[in-house]
Amino acid sequence: MPIHNEVLDQLAARRSVRVFTGDPVTPEQRAAILQAAFMAPTAGCQQLYTILDITDPALRRTLADLCDHQPMVAAAPLCLVFLADCRRWPRAYRAAGAAPREPGPGDLLLAMADACIAAQNAVTAAESLGLGSCYVGDILENAEAVRAALALPPHVVPAALLIFGVPTPQQAARPKPARFAPEAVVCDNTYPDRTEAALRADFAARSGGAGYDFDADLRAFCARKYDSDFSREMSRSAAVYLQDFL
Amino acid sequence: MPIHNEVLDQLAARRSVRVFTGDPVTPEQRAAILQAAFMAPTAGCQQLYTILDITDPALRRTLADLCDHQPMVAAAPLCLVFLADCRRWPRAYRAAGAAPREPGPGDLLLAMADACIAAQNAVTAAESLGLGSCYVGDILENAEAVRAALALPPHVVPAALLIFGVPTPQQAARPKPARFAPEAVVCDNTYPDRTEAALRADFAARSGGAGYDFDADLRAFCARKYDSDFSREMSRSAAVYLQDFL
Repeated sequence: MPIHNEVLDQLAARRSVRVFTGDPVTPEQRAAILQAAFMAPTAGCQQLYTILDITDPALRRTLADLCDHQPMVAAAPLCLVFLADCRRWPRAYRAAGAAPREPGPGDLLLAMADACIAAQNAVTAAESLGLGSCYVGDILENAEAVRAALALPPHVVPAALLIFGVPTPQQAARPKPARFAPEAVVCDNTYPDRTEAALRADFAARSGGAGYDFDADLRAFCARKYDSDFSREMSRSAAVYLQDFL
Repeated sequence: MPIHNEVLDQLAARRSVRVFTGDPVTPEQRAAILQAAFMAPTAGCQQLYTILDITDPALRRTLADLCDHQPMVAAAPLCLVFLADCRRWPRAYRAAGAAPREPGPGDLLLAMADACIAAQNAVTAAESLGLGSCYVGDILENAEAVRAALALPPHVVPAALLIFGVPTPQQAARPKPARFAPEAVVCDNTYPDRTEAALRADFAARSGGAGYDFDADLRAFCARKYDSDFSREMSRSAAVYLQDFL
């Protein structure tokens, strides 16, 4: 028998919400969302992130445009950008008279993890308040323009953009997309490549449809997502951020 | 008045647990933790991760050693490694007859985010079950040996190692370390460098102690953490993983 409790049920029910009613996120709700982010586990209790609350409507429109033209980024009641911040602590070290090394790739990945872990606590907190949320991964695109818009110095990298608000009834009623079966993504001890037959079965089980066409579905998804302009731009842009750390 | 509910209170109460009783994590608890991870938000519903359940005692000891010699990795009842997996979907694309591009830095950062978001849902689920957890960021170190131990192919990168178990009473009673004040880590719209005076005030407020010595504390922390051998190793090792994507 699967275990149920309030927390597990909320984690299971949570789904991305991209359309919001006109209701605001109240200051108390915003504070609870941020507090949950702060309470997240963080490496050495360093909080290797800075959170930008994007309140300026013009900046929201700019970000909506830079994030693959998604108007919801401008329209959402609350929009937070979680930045992996590899700058605060070295600045503090120097202020204290130390001479720290330059930030490296390990610092970036650790801060990316810190920022995403905090972001997910914000999502969970919002869900508990009846608020919907959506990650916008496209914030990784257009590094030069995003840096300019958010005044990001070196060693500060966008990890996640999150929007929050009250879901419309239609959004709240949408089904949650199916996940892979556990055996497709969990393995004992070492990483095994799935055989092609297993991969086909994994995707068919996830689709749930009797007439699932693996070849057509994966080719279309590859063209629409993985080989899309925005996906290629994301890797170009991410490489710009990485340069600081290499 | 701050908002309280069951979820918010649990997120606030959760703290890292590194010592566990001899009680096991039951199969039902393990299933609930994994299910919560699967239910996490995931870019395009792709689940860009693979989770390794490290059940082999010898492998646990190897990982404990590779993670900066932390015996808790071997001793914990449950140990999950969350891998950013940029390999599953391209393999499926190729199986379907597509010719996808090579994975790039954007794919890596997106998958790192996906894996960490899923990992944090696992942590939240564990807390709701009365189980303690701890992230071990050191899994990013020793890339060559970790790759060999976990049989990681190219484009599969450790994002987080998590241990779980029943907290000892002593661990459960430990206070949660203080965070920065909200104004130290949340800003409106753009990234401002904190002035040196603000940085000093941020750290003093976080320490809570009247006799806080910023210079001594930050110099000691820099030497112990940021300029430590393990931190330098983490950046060397992360660069090895990054090579696949550049």
